[in-house]
Amino acid sequence: MEEGCIFCKIAAGAVPCFKIYEDDLMVSFLDIGPVVLGHTLVIPKKHYRNVLDVPAEVISSISGRLPMLARAVISVVQAPACHVLLNSGVEAMQSVHHLHYHIIPRKYGDGFGVPWPAGQLDAGTGRQMAAEITAAMHQSH
Amino acid sequence: MEEGCIFCKIAAGAVPCFKIYEDDLMVSFLDIGPVVLGHTLVIPKKHYRNVLDVPAEVISSISGRLPMLARAVISVVQAPACHVLLNSGVEAMQSVHHLHYHIIPRKYGDGFGVPWPAGQLDAGTGRQMAAEITAAMHQSH
Repeated sequence: MEEGCIFCKIAAGAVPCFKIYEDDLMVSFLDIGPVVLGHTLVIPKKHYRNVLDVPAEVISSISGRLPMLARAVISVVQAPACHVLLNSGVEAMQSVHHLHYHIIPRKYGDGFGVPWPAGQLDAGTGRQMAAEITAAMHQSH
Repeated sequence: MEEGCIFCKIAAGAVPCFKIYEDDLMVSFLDIGPVVLGHTLVIPKKHYRNVLDVPAEVISSISGRLPMLARAVISVVQAPACHVLLNSGVEAMQSVHHLHYHIIPRKYGDGFGVPWPAGQLDAGTGRQMAAEITAAMHQSH
């Protein structure tokens, strides 16, 4: 357990939550600062900061529950769609530094949205960047 | 393979991409309409629409590669952080209807951002909604 981590306390049952699911590895509960009704969090019980330091087998196990959780959440709020979002690092708006997926139900007119300033990747940049990322992956193994 | 699905064609090698990773189950490649430099997609080779219909074992396997891929992507664009985002359904801004994770590197001043209109969940609503979601999960099993 990480000192002072609110999600570690929730995982340990030391702080209450509006729980929707729990097993040996993970807990899922409602976000108390919801961006839309039904906004749900999914966390591993063990403390990892985010996607950058979580072991493959942990994120793998947790993610396997996303379809079941997302279907149940959106059915209750009668939304046809959802985002699943994992913010990793303060520059990516992570505020609690214990890995958590957000399940954010979506329907038209709900007031939530992600501005999407899509650019265009030119072929030269694409080829070079793909090669560099592939190389970076091999270096770290 | 789903008729007319661009990601099925990429997975089959019938349409080129700036590939950074491939194995039996999945492919990862650069988004050609990047919202920031390094914007990367992660898809299963087999066609599933999104998180709502993907089998647990498929999303589990794919998600296990997210830490490795995210670390490599952000190291190359020298970003300290990233979002991992799975849009599921048109109301959640899904445009290609073949499941894909977005890895979106983030640094301050990069021009990307997710407005976060956090509300406050009152205890009555929280208790009732958690109970309803839990019930919905059990009904679907």
